[in-house]
Amino acid sequence: MGLIVQKFGGTSVADADRIRNVARIITETYRRGHSVVAVLSAQGDTTDDLIDKAAEINPNASKREMDMLLSTGEQISCSLCAMAIEAMGYPVISLTGWQAGFRTDSAHGNARIKRVNTERLMQELDKKSIVIVTGFQGINRYDDITTLGRGGSDTSAVALAAALHADLCQIYTDVDGVYTADPRMVKEAHKLEEITYDEMLELATLGAQVLHNRSVEMAKRYHVNLEVLSSFSGQPGTKVKEVVKTMEKSHISGVARDKNIARLALVGLEDTPGIAFKIFSLLASSGVNVDIILQSIGRSETKDISFTVAKSDMDLARQVLEENKESINFDRIDVSDHIAKVSIVGAGMINNPGVAATMFEALFSAGININMISTSEIKVSVLVDLDDADRAVQVIHQRFYSEFGDK
Amino acid sequence: MGLIVQKFGGTSVADADRIRNVARIITETYRRGHSVVAVLSAQGDTTDDLIDKAAEINPNASKREMDMLLSTGEQISCSLCAMAIEAMGYPVISLTGWQAGFRTDSAHGNARIKRVNTERLMQELDKKSIVIVTGFQGINRYDDITTLGRGGSDTSAVALAAALHADLCQIYTDVDGVYTADPRMVKEAHKLEEITYDEMLELATLGAQVLHNRSVEMAKRYHVNLEVLSSFSGQPGTKVKEVVKTMEKSHISGVARDKNIARLALVGLEDTPGIAFKIFSLLASSGVNVDIILQSIGRSETKDISFTVAKSDMDLARQVLEENKESINFDRIDVSDHIAKVSIVGAGMINNPGVAATMFEALFSAGININMISTSEIKVSVLVDLDDADRAVQVIHQRFYSEFGDK
Repeated sequence: MGLIVQKFGGTSVADADRIRNVARIITETYRRGHSVVAVLSAQGDTTDDLIDKAAEINPNASKREMDMLLSTGEQISCSLCAMAIEAMGYPVISLTGWQAGFRTDSAHGNARIKRVNTERLMQELDKKSIVIVTGFQGINRYDDITTLGRGGSDTSAVALAAALHADLCQIYTDVDGVYTADPRMVKEAHKLEEITYDEMLELATLGAQVLHNRSVEMAKRYHVNLEVLSSFSGQPGTKVKEVVKTMEKSHISGVARDKNIARLALVGLEDTPGIAFKIFSLLASSGVNVDIILQSIGRSETKDISFTVAKSDMDLARQVLEENKESINFDRIDVSDHIAKVSIVGAGMINNPGVAATMFEALFSAGININMISTSEIKVSVLVDLDDADRAVQVIHQRFYSEFGDK
Repeated sequence: MGLIVQKFGGTSVADADRIRNVARIITETYRRGHSVVAVLSAQGDTTDDLIDKAAEINPNASKREMDMLLSTGEQISCSLCAMAIEAMGYPVISLTGWQAGFRTDSAHGNARIKRVNTERLMQELDKKSIVIVTGFQGINRYDDITTLGRGGSDTSAVALAAALHADLCQIYTDVDGVYTADPRMVKEAHKLEEITYDEMLELATLGAQVLHNRSVEMAKRYHVNLEVLSSFSGQPGTKVKEVVKTMEKSHISGVARDKNIARLALVGLEDTPGIAFKIFSLLASSGVNVDIILQSIGRSETKDISFTVAKSDMDLARQVLEENKESINFDRIDVSDHIAKVSIVGAGMINNPGVAATMFEALFSAGININMISTSEIKVSVLVDLDDADRAVQVIHQRFYSEFGDK
């Protein structure tokens, strides 16, 4: 008998049948005696359709008006879901982002939640109503509608769970949990019962795409118990929490792959102090996020610096550096997006020094060349050729889950 | 150099091209030095599409959730129109009903505007922004979204014009003004330059369908200068105001026809005092609006009472009366919806006693039988057979506009 926040993504509410399915999940939870707040995304293609409508009229529309437009998507899915629950005979009310008390900053299209005023929500919960809330949106201090950007509905759900001190925040999606690798790529991949926030954060960053990073970060900060599960299967999902029971047993939690990256290499840099600072502060001030950085060991008077960025930032990064070629002083830039990042993540690896070596050995045995390496306390990432990426995930997964017998 | 409120209906914003056309009208007004607030309806079929979506999920959805759903239609058209104006390089902002300060009662689906808090609107106008406002909607005192029901966007526009003390409220529609008769029916019909509120009210009630009654009543009460014009033709429309210049000249302003009525006749009523009161208070308490009432002159112990109602209320009216047959005490009810009401409207007729006679004479000459007659200071209505309705309009129009030479 607790308070449960449930979040349903766009595919889960794509049509009338799926909305009814979501209504069933919500009402079953309610019937078990819980208070339920459900956060919904827009239906399937709605957001894309609205973006197309806008592009036809003004491809450079202001983000303020785009938010006004796009926020209707969740309002539609939420009111329809409330109607489905009404038809089942349960008390229900749908609330927009502003009605539910979401206050954000003014970064239209990518706003941050500043607080959630839960007064109205508490009133409705006190009345024993099921509350359906539009994800992805809020209002700023001028009462203008804002949207939260990518993964926004997950973040809305976690923020609500935090503000309402919910017992659990369930993220319903089209996969039934977090897997040791992408099941479409690795058939032996299996679902994890539990995973830590930190592991989930690494996996999210690395392209596992189950949960958006912002929502996991927020869940970690406010100690929100998360569960990722499928709105279609009815099976238990993966729990995301601070400490997981099975941590001792497994060395890694998963293998992930990110094809959406590019590598830039600055060749023939003068070996002067502060040159790395200059390069990366230039990129940072242009809004380019740099991921893995590799600096060659200075054997001569010149050195090379390589780094990876999101593929979408590749051209901007190159342009910024070319424009500052004289002040940075380099020979040339090599750029490639024919690469991928393959990573293993596991809170257990910090106490198992052999984990990275096992990964490298698996890749060596498969004849896969490693381009760059980056490590943290709970992950090891390598850059490989794009064509080797899927095979790399398979051989690494095989090596870990046969040698160590993790299940 | 004044403040102009412009309202554009669903057909005026049906697609991207039409939205651009509306944006041109708005920006041209702005370029002439006016402050402009534009009130928009939802695009063409949007509202019907949303209603279909709801019906698929719950045909008996609550009106509260229907309002939540339907209000997205105007939010979409308004943000798209703002984007079109942005593309033309003008400062613009779109506001939802609640952002624009529309406060209503809680009658979801048919709410009444209680007030418009113009603070935000004034701020935006002070910044020299064009303001685009969603018609048809507001919020009640619980901050729930409400819609205004039929003709709601016209009412929104007039309410805004009243609250902002606008110099003019232009209602753009798909006809280019108010005509002396329906131009599709009477080819000699011509557009009126001006018309009084009262005449417009009679014409609206009588089925002219250019402006909704609620908006005309509000315009009359708050002395809002209205103009009805086409968003396609670019021609001047018809001005609706308190007193019109041309009133002396013309005896009638227009001929209207309403096919959407039914007549009920209670036959064989006892001739006791208070019987009419009993009948019509019963109907009123059931929400049935009665229009024309005719009571036969009592030649015997029994009498008949006939009256007209909207066709949609016909069955309800009959049912209410049948259920109270004993207490009312009548022989039978005759019901017919094979009738139409044809009316002439004109502020000038009060001083011209011959006007009604001219109308009757025109109908007599054409062999059209008159069923019931009802008159007020500025109109004469007759009931005719449905098959005679269009011809009745034609012969009346011809008689007035050839005999009196009005133009």
